[in-house]
Amino acid sequence: MSFIVTPQSMQFPGVLALSSGASISNYTLAYETYGELNAERSNAVLVCHALNASHHVAGVYAGQEKSEGWWDNMIGPGKPVDTNRFFVIGVNNLGSCFGSTGPMHVNPETGRVYGADFPVVTVEDWVNAQAGLLDALGIDGLAAVMGGSLGGMQALSWTLQFPERVRHAVVVASAPSLTAQNIAFNEVARRAIVTDPDFNGGHFYEHGVVPKRGLRIARMIGHITYQSDDLMNEKFGRALRSAVEGSAANTDFLYSTQEVEFQIESYLRYNGDKFSEYFDANTYLLITRALDYFDPARAHGGELGAALAGATAQFLLVSFTTDWRFSPARSREIVKALLDNRRNVSYAEIDAPHGHDAFLLDDVRYMGVVRSYFERIGKELDAAAPALPRRAKA
Amino acid sequence: MSFIVTPQSMQFPGVLALSSGASISNYTLAYETYGELNAERSNAVLVCHALNASHHVAGVYAGQEKSEGWWDNMIGPGKPVDTNRFFVIGVNNLGSCFGSTGPMHVNPETGRVYGADFPVVTVEDWVNAQAGLLDALGIDGLAAVMGGSLGGMQALSWTLQFPERVRHAVVVASAPSLTAQNIAFNEVARRAIVTDPDFNGGHFYEHGVVPKRGLRIARMIGHITYQSDDLMNEKFGRALRSAVEGSAANTDFLYSTQEVEFQIESYLRYNGDKFSEYFDANTYLLITRALDYFDPARAHGGELGAALAGATAQFLLVSFTTDWRFSPARSREIVKALLDNRRNVSYAEIDAPHGHDAFLLDDVRYMGVVRSYFERIGKELDAAAPALPRRAKA
Repeated sequence: MSFIVTPQSMQFPGVLALSSGASISNYTLAYETYGELNAERSNAVLVCHALNASHHVAGVYAGQEKSEGWWDNMIGPGKPVDTNRFFVIGVNNLGSCFGSTGPMHVNPETGRVYGADFPVVTVEDWVNAQAGLLDALGIDGLAAVMGGSLGGMQALSWTLQFPERVRHAVVVASAPSLTAQNIAFNEVARRAIVTDPDFNGGHFYEHGVVPKRGLRIARMIGHITYQSDDLMNEKFGRALRSAVEGSAANTDFLYSTQEVEFQIESYLRYNGDKFSEYFDANTYLLITRALDYFDPARAHGGELGAALAGATAQFLLVSFTTDWRFSPARSREIVKALLDNRRNVSYAEIDAPHGHDAFLLDDVRYMGVVRSYFERIGKELDAAAPALPRRAKA
Repeated sequence: MSFIVTPQSMQFPGVLALSSGASISNYTLAYETYGELNAERSNAVLVCHALNASHHVAGVYAGQEKSEGWWDNMIGPGKPVDTNRFFVIGVNNLGSCFGSTGPMHVNPETGRVYGADFPVVTVEDWVNAQAGLLDALGIDGLAAVMGGSLGGMQALSWTLQFPERVRHAVVVASAPSLTAQNIAFNEVARRAIVTDPDFNGGHFYEHGVVPKRGLRIARMIGHITYQSDDLMNEKFGRALRSAVEGSAANTDFLYSTQEVEFQIESYLRYNGDKFSEYFDANTYLLITRALDYFDPARAHGGELGAALAGATAQFLLVSFTTDWRFSPARSREIVKALLDNRRNVSYAEIDAPHGHDAFLLDDVRYMGVVRSYFERIGKELDAAAPALPRRAKA
């Protein structure tokens, strides 16, 4: 049993300028905090979420079974990111569908639900909004910013957008940009959603329908690419549907193209169905696009070393050997670019079988590395008070 | 300019029993032949096709530009499989949509178009039908049977179903069965087609529509998985849509989730659209299912060595290092199982960047290996006449 947490939300009456040139005004951010902010206000850790996660990072909601946060194995009292020592903040990103302002909300300027008209948001926009939340909470500097996958991109972007506010960045199973193959998978998922007749040009809410067919396909693709081939073979292999129907053994083929024949098919359909029940289609488009766009090297002629020159934080990077969506090679690109800038960087390449999903799972070596890194951060906090990082010169 | 060829077709008035227990009667097979059958009728080479290919393996159709067969670089006068020496046969499989009896044809027993009621066909069923064509052509033994991917599965199955009729099997970029990940990708593609409202339960012909949305998604997934990540990065990388619109440079993002932003998106959409114009949705379901089902080890407790014990042919296997859909490891499983049975097997693992698609492309080493292997077969034909392989004892 984990600890009890309560979601909160913060209103922002101002205007947030976005990368696209558009802006959002009067927006809300949903967030949660765990642990206590110390007197020096120096022990805050911001956790950024990936595609389908939220501000509910750790703990459980009172009276709700199985409501553990998505990184509850990593964050909490006595856990690798120890909330007895750190004040941890989880925040739902703009455009998401879990409480922060998103496509299903009313645009205050038009009085109409945003739908597909919600402005395209980038990793940089999210980081700006997160910085506004920290301002509102009275937190100037972060002991650490951390995230996995798309969350790791946000952590990396923090060190570039607000170098003076970040002491450490923990970037897990991430990349300095998506590859063509990654963009391609995102595009297929988006096309499945957009071409679903129930999408209605992104204004399906007012038609009382949901483009579930498209969301199912998108999620099925996701489930395949977040796992390794080996893990899928181990979990499902070529086993037939016996487990599905609960019978002891189904050893004969059904010889059908549309019925479930293999267990892997049942797994994918189940997860696709579940996802289509709760996830917003416009949010899926927005978040995959934010992934596509992230590329800090772009403004520096493709030179990642030049792009990361402004980062002053210390870094921990973690990758997983079987992650073919965000491969270790991509993390090593970041490590190299940081070393080229003489930055302090630790890197752990974990030999785990789970593919990209490994960043969410328990692995003794992975957890051990993160625990040790945060113990080091804790000792720095003990040694130095007041502990706010000095402002870097522009 | 390649040589001129003419497609042919053969009617089979009898009944073909299928693996599923169903049967097809009064069916047609479309086929082509290249070169001349020798007096001993010993120089025939059967070429089996993969997912979206056909009997049009080599040559061009008179008056049709860009009508080269799908393996025209491999097969023809003076090519690795030299039609000056070999009599090559290409055949369109049952259930396909290029001339052989398939879902868009009328079921003679009901007078109604088959649609989704076309019986599920397996690799073994196709091989049985191909054997019937050889009977009709008066060809007892094959100098070689060859194919890539799903075509390689048919070549392998020939050596098990008709060992006495096959002297050599050339199995390229293939596998002894699909992995869970492979089945998963097939299942996503099938779900995209089946859940397209225009699919109409597989009887869309009578509604005058085509489930193009689903076919597009299926093809997009295929294009991603048939290429390597590296090749996609080399061909498209993160380049923007400039090439699409023909303008010199588009260096700014559009900040849109639905418009084409990256060149890889344009490539996928174009190929998805093109495919949906000519490929039959029910055929896609059938052929991916045949892929899923193929697993000769299944009847032998999962022991591939036991499954291949009955094969008496000599083998050439070829795999490609960057093929992550039919990886070299899967070809090596076949090589090992054949060696365990003391069979004569040659194996070439080609270091090519193109992923699974490499089996269709020119690569000097790949073409060289196949050429040498067929020169060896040719020398055997020269040395031994009559050259029919002896019948293996049951």
